[in-house]
Amino acid sequence: MIRERVSDLQNLLKEKNISAVIIPTDDFHMSEYVGDYFKARNYFSGFTGSAGVMVVTQDEANLWVDGRYFIQAERQLANTGIIQRNMGEPGVPTVEEYIVSKLGEGDVLAFDGRVISYNAGKSYAEKLAAKGAKMSTEEDIPGMLWKDRPALSAEKAYVLPVEFSGKTVKEKLSDVRAVMAAKGTDVHVITSLDDIAWLYNIRGNDVLCTPVVLSFAVVTMDKAYIFANPSVFDEAVMAHLTESGVEVKPYEEVYSFVKGFSKETKVLIDTRNANYAIVNSISAEIVSAPNPEMEMKAVKNPVEVENYRISHIQDGVAVTKFMYWLKKNAGKIPMTEYTAQEYLSQLRYERPNNLGLSFTPISGYKENAAMMHYSASPETAKEITNEGMLLVDSGGHYWEGSTDITRTFILGPVSDEIKKHFTAVVRGVIGISRARFLEGCVGVNFDILARLPMWEMDLDYKCGTGHGVGYLLNVHEGPQGFRWRMLPNRNESAPFAEGMITTVEPGIYIEGSHGIRTENEVLCCKGEANEYGQFMYFETITFAPIDLDGIAPEYLTQYEREWLNNYHAQVFEKISPWLTEEETEWLKEYTRAI
Amino acid sequence: MIRERVSDLQNLLKEKNISAVIIPTDDFHMSEYVGDYFKARNYFSGFTGSAGVMVVTQDEANLWVDGRYFIQAERQLANTGIIQRNMGEPGVPTVEEYIVSKLGEGDVLAFDGRVISYNAGKSYAEKLAAKGAKMSTEEDIPGMLWKDRPALSAEKAYVLPVEFSGKTVKEKLSDVRAVMAAKGTDVHVITSLDDIAWLYNIRGNDVLCTPVVLSFAVVTMDKAYIFANPSVFDEAVMAHLTESGVEVKPYEEVYSFVKGFSKETKVLIDTRNANYAIVNSISAEIVSAPNPEMEMKAVKNPVEVENYRISHIQDGVAVTKFMYWLKKNAGKIPMTEYTAQEYLSQLRYERPNNLGLSFTPISGYKENAAMMHYSASPETAKEITNEGMLLVDSGGHYWEGSTDITRTFILGPVSDEIKKHFTAVVRGVIGISRARFLEGCVGVNFDILARLPMWEMDLDYKCGTGHGVGYLLNVHEGPQGFRWRMLPNRNESAPFAEGMITTVEPGIYIEGSHGIRTENEVLCCKGEANEYGQFMYFETITFAPIDLDGIAPEYLTQYEREWLNNYHAQVFEKISPWLTEEETEWLKEYTRAI
Repeated sequence: MIRERVSDLQNLLKEKNISAVIIPTDDFHMSEYVGDYFKARNYFSGFTGSAGVMVVTQDEANLWVDGRYFIQAERQLANTGIIQRNMGEPGVPTVEEYIVSKLGEGDVLAFDGRVISYNAGKSYAEKLAAKGAKMSTEEDIPGMLWKDRPALSAEKAYVLPVEFSGKTVKEKLSDVRAVMAAKGTDVHVITSLDDIAWLYNIRGNDVLCTPVVLSFAVVTMDKAYIFANPSVFDEAVMAHLTESGVEVKPYEEVYSFVKGFSKETKVLIDTRNANYAIVNSISAEIVSAPNPEMEMKAVKNPVEVENYRISHIQDGVAVTKFMYWLKKNAGKIPMTEYTAQEYLSQLRYERPNNLGLSFTPISGYKENAAMMHYSASPETAKEITNEGMLLVDSGGHYWEGSTDITRTFILGPVSDEIKKHFTAVVRGVIGISRARFLEGCVGVNFDILARLPMWEMDLDYKCGTGHGVGYLLNVHEGPQGFRWRMLPNRNESAPFAEGMITTVEPGIYIEGSHGIRTENEVLCCKGEANEYGQFMYFETITFAPIDLDGIAPEYLTQYEREWLNNYHAQVFEKISPWLTEEETEWLKEYTRAI
Repeated sequence: MIRERVSDLQNLLKEKNISAVIIPTDDFHMSEYVGDYFKARNYFSGFTGSAGVMVVTQDEANLWVDGRYFIQAERQLANTGIIQRNMGEPGVPTVEEYIVSKLGEGDVLAFDGRVISYNAGKSYAEKLAAKGAKMSTEEDIPGMLWKDRPALSAEKAYVLPVEFSGKTVKEKLSDVRAVMAAKGTDVHVITSLDDIAWLYNIRGNDVLCTPVVLSFAVVTMDKAYIFANPSVFDEAVMAHLTESGVEVKPYEEVYSFVKGFSKETKVLIDTRNANYAIVNSISAEIVSAPNPEMEMKAVKNPVEVENYRISHIQDGVAVTKFMYWLKKNAGKIPMTEYTAQEYLSQLRYERPNNLGLSFTPISGYKENAAMMHYSASPETAKEITNEGMLLVDSGGHYWEGSTDITRTFILGPVSDEIKKHFTAVVRGVIGISRARFLEGCVGVNFDILARLPMWEMDLDYKCGTGHGVGYLLNVHEGPQGFRWRMLPNRNESAPFAEGMITTVEPGIYIEGSHGIRTENEVLCCKGEANEYGQFMYFETITFAPIDLDGIAPEYLTQYEREWLNNYHAQVFEKISPWLTEEETEWLKEYTRAI
């Protein structure tokens, strides 16, 4: 099937005299996760991961995947004839290097200008011009062959009341306009869906697990617009928008609207995240800078922080109940990775104010857990018994915020090596969680605290250590994050500020054997200010037991042991009021001091 | 005296219609330490620190000092009328901000173009031009008033034989020319003294404790020149230079020589470190980049590494003998900070192949140790008794390399708080020293491992954690270093490579009370290479006891304790063969496992 789709695509390229087409995993908004309408790469390659870029030439098909997906892609691309390109591995060209090397004088590169970022598109344009090649960016080539393509999502939007958002739209607009003025700009074009949802205090359901509304926004010094399918706004939302001074215009109209800016206008737009087509539609002066909304929404306000504490306890109750059920029943009743994850989702839906899952859960048993972003399907899910480990990475959306938590559960006797690995991962979590530091620290300063226990064993995990988390929004958001490599143009290098919420999630992934990850979220808080500066610390806000069956206490330092015991005492205190008597008894044992 | 010198200078400014003059702490080569000829700032301010910038206007005199010198400057500037400006403190303008704010239309800023870096001079030129102010950079204004100014140094140079350098000049020139070609340049102008000494395998004595020769160098694709006072080269050095293909020209001639480059020439020069006058003398095309010699000399070759091991043992013998003497005699025989430091220097001079001190030792007793770069003078040195602590930061030059070591010695009963501080500092040293990491890590990744024990107590030290060390050269060299702040334009951000040698020197400095620092040097080594990449680790090459009288073992983790015990076992093994029987007995006790 995949071979046929690729070959149809290659025939179309020949017909249209196109040398290569890029099929990215992006929507018109450069969202991290995309709606079904945008899953052309999935359709043409069969690879289901959340990231990856396909490039098809007239005689070759390639798929670039990142470290999370090396193993999964290998399986899913088998027998498709598609060449897998593992990003960042020695000798593997980047997508751009590949394209530039393949195209020469008179050749044509095609992509839909609406699904490639402006910065990427501009770079292609420059490099290809130098080789005498051309670009065609007005057509959606893969779309022409995609049978039964899902429609653009048009789910109902809803209002996030101020008791949850902590700030009115008018207040937020006033903050944004202050930044616009400081940057000497008078118009601000926003293309990122989470920034728009945050700014206008609305939520929707147009992207799986991401409560955003397909839309663009334009803010001037006295007007505010949202470009969206008007049918998704009911009376209540319309009233909220009107009352907030926000005017609704049709989704597709944004391109012509931005074309209409006068030459004197100075437009603030984040060209790294905006699509190639919309930026090229602006003939006014562009000031490219990160959206001010990004930093504003990362620093949670006091109302949001207090809400988060509530959602994390409720989410922890679901995970704790799941852990109790899983450890009690594994090997006794039939269950698979998939049914277990469904059971956990059910527990989440039952929590007060739950609004669904914040992402598709990862439920990986034994060697499947070595695939960092493995996704179990009902058909292929592995059966769970009373041995080995189950890794579950999951989270929920609540009126009080979004959560992201990973626990690895021990389901039977485990080897000393596994305990050593399990304990090392927990030591990594503790390393960052108990850090006390001076204001100004950024992610690259912290990462080694999480990674060192792995590095000490000549192991590593091929991803970052943590990311910001949105408030009833994207489960991954910038501008901060825990990483050790200093990469340019990543929204993860901001100093940690009071109110930022970030995951801490080191892991160990041994291909063909096992995978272990423990993930908590930490809130950045202000500590003492003295002659040395403003001290800061992290407060862990995720509450669920870390499976003591996996821990070899002799590897923990006295400080780590103290942290873990104190953490588990808090877990018991906060979670037990929501449990049955039986669960409470069990929790006491699994939160005991060691 | 200082008041008079400043007022004479201000009168001269009025006479010459100059609004402000900058008196930096730099020579013609932007060296870290400067010869006496260049100590105008010291002469006009009375401040003796190794860094600081003086700016005198017609009615104000200012001195900018960095965190190391806040306390010392306060003492030395008392009653001079000079305004102390603490760099980096809230509300304190930078030197440039101050100057730009003071000067307006028609005003004139003066500095000697040979003692200000090109980048700094260019920035002044641009900012002042925007305000209609001018610059005068051809005169040495402070020099006109400086009575009994020392002459430019002209000490004898000598050859560093290949059994110590590990590489011939011809080999080094060939490496440098390969980089020049790769950068599309055909001439390379070198103004940094250590790069020149390294490249030409010569050493000298023109800067206190820094075995360099006042010189400039120019390398073309087929020629190599050194511009220096020819009287410092004896027959042996001349023969070495000639045999190596290096032509000698007079020191001052470099300015006219570089003026003579044809327009088509492409000149590789590090404009960050080159002086304003020499860069302005070049009319050919300039390619500014860090000197290739910087990275080359930082990565010690196998011969240098083996030599270093020898010099560190000999240096450790001197420090260990000193520690024995000090702890035995403090309170029993008369001694001061100064006489103690002299005694240590004597012990160093007695070691085989010693060539003097690598920097002026810091010997700080009790509260004096809180001044990070305190310098004891015979007149004012504090008397040492059998109480409190003595901090000694010192090092030697040897044919086999240069050393830098700090130990803090406990001379009497100490409080629990002191032990807590002392132990925290040692934990910081161990934190970096035992790190195992992936190739690619840079200083900002590591720093928190050293600083965290201090941050956990809401304490900090206002300096970096470590710096590269030259081979019989500058005791501070780039391009790597341990820092947590990401500062632009600092030569400390290079990834750690096999063969780099770096200090690890966290500390605690409590003004008016005490100062503690422990400093070792670590060699970066390659560990296992596997699917995750190339692992690296640090090997500690400094050997002298860390005073166990200061350590509260209960604060150490099991890993730290293991490291310390293993370290002390090595100290005993390597140092004891060089000690007397009595010293050996004592060392056994002070390197015992705890």
